[in-house]
Amino acid sequence: MALIVQKYGGASLATPEKFKFVADRIIREKKKGNQMVIVVSAPGDTTDDLIEFAEKLAKEPDSRELDMLMSTGEQQSIALMSMALIEKGYKAKSFTGAQVGIVTDSKHTKARIMDIKGAAKIKQALKEGYICVVAGFQGITPDADITTLGRGGSDLTAVALATALKADVVEFLKDVEGVMTTNPELVKDAKKIDFLSYDEMLELSSGGAQVLYNRSVEYAKNYNVVLHVRGTFTDKQGTIIKKEDKKMEKIVVSGITYTTKEAKITIKGVPDHPGIAALVFSKLAEGEVNVDMIIQNVSDNGTTDISFTISMKDIVRAKKVLDVIVKKVNARGYKIDEKIGKVSAVGVGMRTHTGIASAMFRALADSRINIEMISTSEIKISVVVREDQVGAAVKTLHDAFKLGRKTVSKEN
Amino acid sequence: MALIVQKYGGASLATPEKFKFVADRIIREKKKGNQMVIVVSAPGDTTDDLIEFAEKLAKEPDSRELDMLMSTGEQQSIALMSMALIEKGYKAKSFTGAQVGIVTDSKHTKARIMDIKGAAKIKQALKEGYICVVAGFQGITPDADITTLGRGGSDLTAVALATALKADVVEFLKDVEGVMTTNPELVKDAKKIDFLSYDEMLELSSGGAQVLYNRSVEYAKNYNVVLHVRGTFTDKQGTIIKKEDKKMEKIVVSGITYTTKEAKITIKGVPDHPGIAALVFSKLAEGEVNVDMIIQNVSDNGTTDISFTISMKDIVRAKKVLDVIVKKVNARGYKIDEKIGKVSAVGVGMRTHTGIASAMFRALADSRINIEMISTSEIKISVVVREDQVGAAVKTLHDAFKLGRKTVSKEN
Repeated sequence: MALIVQKYGGASLATPEKFKFVADRIIREKKKGNQMVIVVSAPGDTTDDLIEFAEKLAKEPDSRELDMLMSTGEQQSIALMSMALIEKGYKAKSFTGAQVGIVTDSKHTKARIMDIKGAAKIKQALKEGYICVVAGFQGITPDADITTLGRGGSDLTAVALATALKADVVEFLKDVEGVMTTNPELVKDAKKIDFLSYDEMLELSSGGAQVLYNRSVEYAKNYNVVLHVRGTFTDKQGTIIKKEDKKMEKIVVSGITYTTKEAKITIKGVPDHPGIAALVFSKLAEGEVNVDMIIQNVSDNGTTDISFTISMKDIVRAKKVLDVIVKKVNARGYKIDEKIGKVSAVGVGMRTHTGIASAMFRALADSRINIEMISTSEIKISVVVREDQVGAAVKTLHDAFKLGRKTVSKEN
Repeated sequence: MALIVQKYGGASLATPEKFKFVADRIIREKKKGNQMVIVVSAPGDTTDDLIEFAEKLAKEPDSRELDMLMSTGEQQSIALMSMALIEKGYKAKSFTGAQVGIVTDSKHTKARIMDIKGAAKIKQALKEGYICVVAGFQGITPDADITTLGRGGSDLTAVALATALKADVVEFLKDVEGVMTTNPELVKDAKKIDFLSYDEMLELSSGGAQVLYNRSVEYAKNYNVVLHVRGTFTDKQGTIIKKEDKKMEKIVVSGITYTTKEAKITIKGVPDHPGIAALVFSKLAEGEVNVDMIIQNVSDNGTTDISFTISMKDIVRAKKVLDVIVKKVNARGYKIDEKIGKVSAVGVGMRTHTGIASAMFRALADSRINIEMISTSEIKISVVVREDQVGAAVKTLHDAFKLGRKTVSKEN
């Protein structure tokens, strides 16, 4: 008998039929004798609808009141899910963030969890045979104000709750069967990854794979909580994310991710003396522009070019900062290139295997794909290519590292 | 400077525009230097929509979970109203039932208020200049389960809160300008009543006037809280409901109410011996049938007819009970007459004035309206007439007691 925390997103809860379907999915696990704690998001588009209403009342709605408003979505889900379970003959009970004592700081709309005080209450209900249905995304300050946890908040609730309850696993139920070696819409041959380390999952996410939010994976890594990304429509094992082990290290590359949501910015003719780069990137940070990859070219006649990538959505903010920087450092100007894409290969095996980078560059060159920027970490190699070559680059690398179903390596 | 509790219903909160309109209405009172506590219902049809969703999941949704679900409607209203007030430059803060410490028993969907623990919190916020926006309809058990208060729950929240805060008045903002002498759709000449005693308000409501729920008026009477029913679209005084005073006693009849939502049931040929009536009405009570007027005819050959009126919506339940009763007491049978209406004249002046009943019967006779049943209380006289004569009866009595605008008595 295991203690399982399951998390369901809003898309799984958009209609009464979907609630019933999810209820059956939960009951299947309960019937095996497991203790079940369910974390749910708001039904369907509820949160967006509420924000839309609020924005008709105020351009920037007060953040305390926005949390008060948004938290109602998850509260609806827990009540509806509990009703559905009870109707099917099971004991179920809903809990708001306040009732589980998910204590946060008071940074409304992006609060951080400080403590979970109500674990004993959940444990008691589980002992009495209840399926416990807990509202994701929400918490409460020590002054009893309602807060929300920001993007990926429900995932975080699930992981934090699992930590407090010492659960065996947190299952994230998805439309897909698990984390894939790459986007199956792009590469038909893509297959499910069986195991990932926390770091691989983090690199895959920041590389563009929209599976789990990094906050939750980092939390899980810190507390060593086993995560399981699996399909709502299947009972098969999905992708288990846990502490790195020997077996994982045998797999050199676990997956290929990509994003076309970044832009490349080049500041041209920057005087090449100490402290310039520090100045540029601290100004960008102050302007709340998140910088991803950075390259500084070799100096030429005392000036140099600095290139970096940022998220498309930061472009407006970036321009404001860049206008100031260019004047301040007396650079020649800057250029924004939105037609690029970033492709990354991720795998813990890179730590112990050599030659991965060169194999990657060779494969891309063989496919006549030009590399514009390169950045590497211990377990990830990323390259920037032309946007219209991203698809080809992903396919090339997926093949080169034998990630497809047709080329299953023995370790899998 | 007064402490005013204002209550707004869901119809006043159906759209963003209505929230803004209500916000302006609140601000007008705030600007006069008053401390404002606002109690709101759920926006528009939210509660009905939620119940509809729930009923697709379960025939009879679990009552604890139904409360968890329904309470989100009012929570949305308090957040949205606070945002609207803040956007207009005022300090405002929302409070759920839990946050105000509205402690109830655990009878889900119809809980009773036991205590209001958070009055000091509201007082403090008022002192700091906040407009306090409190969720109506909801409370919390000592075990922190969310409850709702049943029909008219938001009105009750307003009155209970006013009691705890020692507020000067509770204002109920309505589409109408106050409590009317009778339905203005029926009698063009109907006019607003300036003052009513609690008992008059109770009798008017139970007579059919849908203004305030009796629970709230009874609560206000017990704690001597002044109520003010007034128009959302006007700043004029509406109807003030308070402890009876000398001035009120001068007015013999304050208003005429009527309902066509009752049916008359006659049990025929009931053996006329002691205990039969007790048996009949205790059985009906057990069957959750609310009985209003009762008449027992004079005995004839050892049997009698018992007539009474019940709400239309109890007819199905009543039939079940009546089938049993008729057998048990060996009666001849029963008859249900849905084509009746009840018309009532209400006024505290009846206590000191004589001849009101006979004046009423005379007026109806002059208009050729036949009276089928009569019942009287200290401050109310009700008659049952044919349904198609209700309109004529109301007009006749409204004229007879000079309630119209054109016939304003000196006391008004």
